[in-house]
Amino acid sequence: MSKLYGAIEAGGTKFVCAVADEDLNILERVSIPTTVPEETMTDVFKFFEKHDVVSIGIASFGPIDVNRKSETYGYITNTPKPGWKDYDFLGEMKKRFDVDYAWTTDVNGAAYGELKRGAAKGKDSCVYLTVGTGVGGGVVINGKVIEGYGHPEIGHIVMRRHPEDHYEGHCPFHHDCLEGLAAGPAIEARQGGVKAYEIPKDDKAWEIVAYYLAQACVDLTLTLSPEKIIFGGGVSKQEQLFPMIRKSFAEQLNDYVQTPDLDDYIVHVDLGDDAGITGCLLLAKEAETK
Amino acid sequence: MSKLYGAIEAGGTKFVCAVADEDLNILERVSIPTTVPEETMTDVFKFFEKHDVVSIGIASFGPIDVNRKSETYGYITNTPKPGWKDYDFLGEMKKRFDVDYAWTTDVNGAAYGELKRGAAKGKDSCVYLTVGTGVGGGVVINGKVIEGYGHPEIGHIVMRRHPEDHYEGHCPFHHDCLEGLAAGPAIEARQGGVKAYEIPKDDKAWEIVAYYLAQACVDLTLTLSPEKIIFGGGVSKQEQLFPMIRKSFAEQLNDYVQTPDLDDYIVHVDLGDDAGITGCLLLAKEAETK
Ligand SMILES: Nc1ncnc2c1ncn2[C@@H]1O[C@H](COP(=O)(O)OP(=O)(O)O)[C@@H](O)[C@H]1O
Ligand SMILES: Nc1ncnc2c1ncn2[C@@H]1O[C@H](COP(=O)(O)OP(=O)(O)O)[C@@H](O)[C@H]1O
Ligand SMILES: [Zn+2]
Ligand SMILES: [Zn+2]
Repeated sequence: MSKLYGAIEAGGTKFVCAVADEDLNILERVSIPTTVPEETMTDVFKFFEKHDVVSIGIASFGPIDVNRKSETYGYITNTPKPGWKDYDFLGEMKKRFDVDYAWTTDVNGAAYGELKRGAAKGKDSCVYLTVGTGVGGGVVINGKVIEGYGHPEIGHIVMRRHPEDHYEGHCPFHHDCLEGLAAGPAIEARQGGVKAYEIPKDDKAWEIVAYYLAQACVDLTLTLSPEKIIFGGGVSKQEQLFPMIRKSFAEQLNDYVQTPDLDDYIVHVDLGDDAGITGCLLLAKEAETK
Repeated sequence: MSKLYGAIEAGGTKFVCAVADEDLNILERVSIPTTVPEETMTDVFKFFEKHDVVSIGIASFGPIDVNRKSETYGYITNTPKPGWKDYDFLGEMKKRFDVDYAWTTDVNGAAYGELKRGAAKGKDSCVYLTVGTGVGGGVVINGKVIEGYGHPEIGHIVMRRHPEDHYEGHCPFHHDCLEGLAAGPAIEARQGGVKAYEIPKDDKAWEIVAYYLAQACVDLTLTLSPEKIIFGGGVSKQEQLFPMIRKSFAEQLNDYVQTPDLDDYIVHVDLGDDAGITGCLLLAKEAETK
């Protein structure tokens, strides 16, 4: 019988748990609402009690501690989500299941899934940016997710203002960082509360959003030189944004460095909602030591 | 007898070539002025004809092609320096010396040297920023220098303006990118041509420079999460900048993510002028396959 691999994509609204065979065909998958750890994790434990996996890949909402030299490695750290602050996620799993683990952020998991099986298949590097309620970024470089002292928080990089944008920004830490200016709630607040999906496709609002997302792509290109930049999340459903981001990117970068053809470089997620769980399973398989 | 390793730190004003033993003790080192390839490289070839090295690490001024999938891998590409545009640096070396090679940017070489033997010793990641005639950045993540589609060009990331800075910037591509606002020539032009080392240490000019360098540190922290950010280059000789950069960094980041203690995080180069050649030798040793 095939060995089994486990995956947990731990999101702010739901946890997806899955078990797959050696070819990473998913054999069972459940979705568990994210409430408090006592409830949510009880269901996670139950799921993995049924399946004899050799390793588990976990990609969690954050901020999380990914620093192997830290005493709180494996914890969800400073989240406002009730009950999850300082929760020893990896430790609680290890107490119950003596298997190998991979541990990274939700967006790094998705980036890895897209690299191996999605929009960046065949590449060694990519950035995955999700633009929804917030802005999050995952990064794979030289085939490995980025982890250093902590993990990327690309959503909060400093932005130069679009000259016609006077919205103050909604980030509680920085006001007008990338997330504060370009996440869904910022787009809606800038329009006086109109739902993002109700804003006309030719509204100036999208030009402003495209400018900020393009600026992020410029900085990421100059810093990481990835082979692909992949957008996911609710806001990226506005397909008209993609040509606008590419155009603004070209203007802002002004040909300073070479990039792949922009139609192949700045792209939509390919695996959709499966990017994260796919990444977790791949990371689980690679974490196997036994 | 010990095996020998070679190194070339190819800078815009001089090439440093070195040979070291297995413990990376340097046995001979020469400095060759950077003129045109016919001259400079003739001396480089002569140097390596004298030494029977098993591998050579090259860290070159750029832009260079580091993309292994590219037909011009190993070339210096789009430089304004006469004679060096589209020069097949690695190819010309390989034609003459059938050894193993490492090939990366000058700043990646220095970053690697600082990681293994300098300010970031014992770490797995660091950023090295040189602030001189230009601004350049090298990055090591998970113990490896960053290479993707191309290489980092951190000097040109987009900057939010300091509210009191009205200098237009001097980058021919972007005007007021990081290099356009914070490199030596920008500092001097902002002061109406006063030499940077003659500007009083308590002049407002340094606060403005510190603000931009801190902003770069914020974006690099949020994107790469390195364990150290290391400054080199002429401008970083202004030691009063360091506390100012740390203070502005803390204000701009506003505690959004954890970092190491700032006195240990934002630091001066440790190896000084030896960072690059040390990095090259280490990369040479690791490139050895025979
Ligand atoms: N079709 C759409 N077009 C534009 N914006 C959308 C669309 N769907 C969702 N959004 C925006 O994205 C946000 C939700 O992001 P989403 O990625 O769906 O979930 P989350 O970030 O919470 O995981 C909403 O607040 C809304 O502003
Ligand atoms: N002691 C100093 N203080 C401030 N700025 C300096 C100092 N020395 C050099 N610089 C600035 O750095 C620039 C030279 O940079 P440097 O790193 O020495 O060389 P390069 O970048 O050409 O390799 C000069 O243009 C000058 O503006
Ligand atoms: Zn923010
Ligand atoms: Zn520039």
